[in-house]
Amino acid sequence: MRIDILTLFPEMFEGVFNHSILKKAQDMDVFQYNYVNFREYTENKHNKVDDYPYGGGAGMVLTPQPIFDAVEAVKQKTDKQPRVVLMCPQGEPYHQGKAVELAKEDHLVFICGHYEGYDERIREHLVTDEISIGDYVLTGGELGAMVVIDSVVRLIPGVLGNEASAPEDSFSHGLLEHPHYTRPADFRGMKVPDVLTSGNHAKIEEWRKKQSLKRTHERRKDLLGKYSFTEQELEWFKEFNE
Amino acid sequence: MRIDILTLFPEMFEGVFNHSILKKAQDMDVFQYNYVNFREYTENKHNKVDDYPYGGGAGMVLTPQPIFDAVEAVKQKTDKQPRVVLMCPQGEPYHQGKAVELAKEDHLVFICGHYEGYDERIREHLVTDEISIGDYVLTGGELGAMVVIDSVVRLIPGVLGNEASAPEDSFSHGLLEHPHYTRPADFRGMKVPDVLTSGNHAKIEEWRKKQSLKRTHERRKDLLGKYSFTEQELEWFKEFNE
Repeated sequence: MRIDILTLFPEMFEGVFNHSILKKAQDMDVFQYNYVNFREYTENKHNKVDDYPYGGGAGMVLTPQPIFDAVEAVKQKTDKQPRVVLMCPQGEPYHQGKAVELAKEDHLVFICGHYEGYDERIREHLVTDEISIGDYVLTGGELGAMVVIDSVVRLIPGVLGNEASAPEDSFSHGLLEHPHYTRPADFRGMKVPDVLTSGNHAKIEEWRKKQSLKRTHERRKDLLGKYSFTEQELEWFKEFNE
Repeated sequence: MRIDILTLFPEMFEGVFNHSILKKAQDMDVFQYNYVNFREYTENKHNKVDDYPYGGGAGMVLTPQPIFDAVEAVKQKTDKQPRVVLMCPQGEPYHQGKAVELAKEDHLVFICGHYEGYDERIREHLVTDEISIGDYVLTGGELGAMVVIDSVVRLIPGVLGNEASAPEDSFSHGLLEHPHYTRPADFRGMKVPDVLTSGNHAKIEEWRKKQSLKRTHERRKDLLGKYSFTEQELEWFKEFNE
């Protein structure tokens, strides 16, 4: 997978790209990235990338020309049309299904604004996807792009080794994960539930499923709307509500 | 504000902390950070921070001892009790209101796991807050902590200058932002809406409110449930639904 990132702050990405899974994916040669500083594409003599908003108001707006030209320069280097992703608070709320979808692509382009709004024509005529990583305000699109890239690249086959495979399927099953415990069985008086040290695998499995359902019920009722309950799970569910 | 970050991958943070708003906040001396590599707190001779889960299953689990001891060492250096935030998919979904709340604190501690689950006793007896930045799977808690820290530190009074003040109030008003346009008025045949160049400020204001409402209606109906409509807005809203 190739990823081009339009940003005025390429240095922000270095710590994340040079460590952990993104470094490993590069070493495996399944992920390459490239920064495009769209200031280099400006046609005005002061290399300005922003201007005042039409209609007045505070704040500046990123002008269309440098961003259009930078994306077109990226596209000219490839045969297939890449997905062009705009990171913005108005975008589609990001979720694991979108990560799975993007992980199937060969080439992604991310546009990261910083401080400023985007000229609407970028949104309407240049991008294929608008993504928001959550309902909170960040200084720029860079952190959002890193979040999306991490979540996508780790899904490329082979990138995750055994060390990274397990207790993270919270969003694939539709329920939050059950609690985990490891040694010691008694840590400063705080004990592991007896069932987990019982050796009774059927009981352990039941405890885990029940805990997973209970935690989702207590913390994230919104997730249960989409969940397909088994009959057994429905019975447990009634117990929580009593 | 002081932030201590428990992580096995401190280098991941450097690009983000050394640029943009987080660098500025450090230069202004309103934000200081410190990494705590909790591997240094292990009491076993191989400096292992994880172990197999009780009850079996794939994946490893972070053991309580090094994380408890690292947090306690941080607490001993201060008088007031810090908020201790665990980054995890099972946490409270992060939102702007939480950013505003955390921005009032003097001292935050973040615990970032990587690949692995947390022993439940960490959750139950050590942390004050569990936060998830969204319903997607990341390789570790580091990116989530960076997201939370960026969104919090920018709210510390004085950190945002004028350059960063405006088109980002999407989540403070409860609606998505209206479209922005800047020069040129005609970019490759794509034109700015006439109203914005009309000079009629009342009309511009109306257009913006209506667009903001329309965009929220089209993209994020979920946000409208909490929104207090004016009578005028309710009328527009009926038009969209016709």
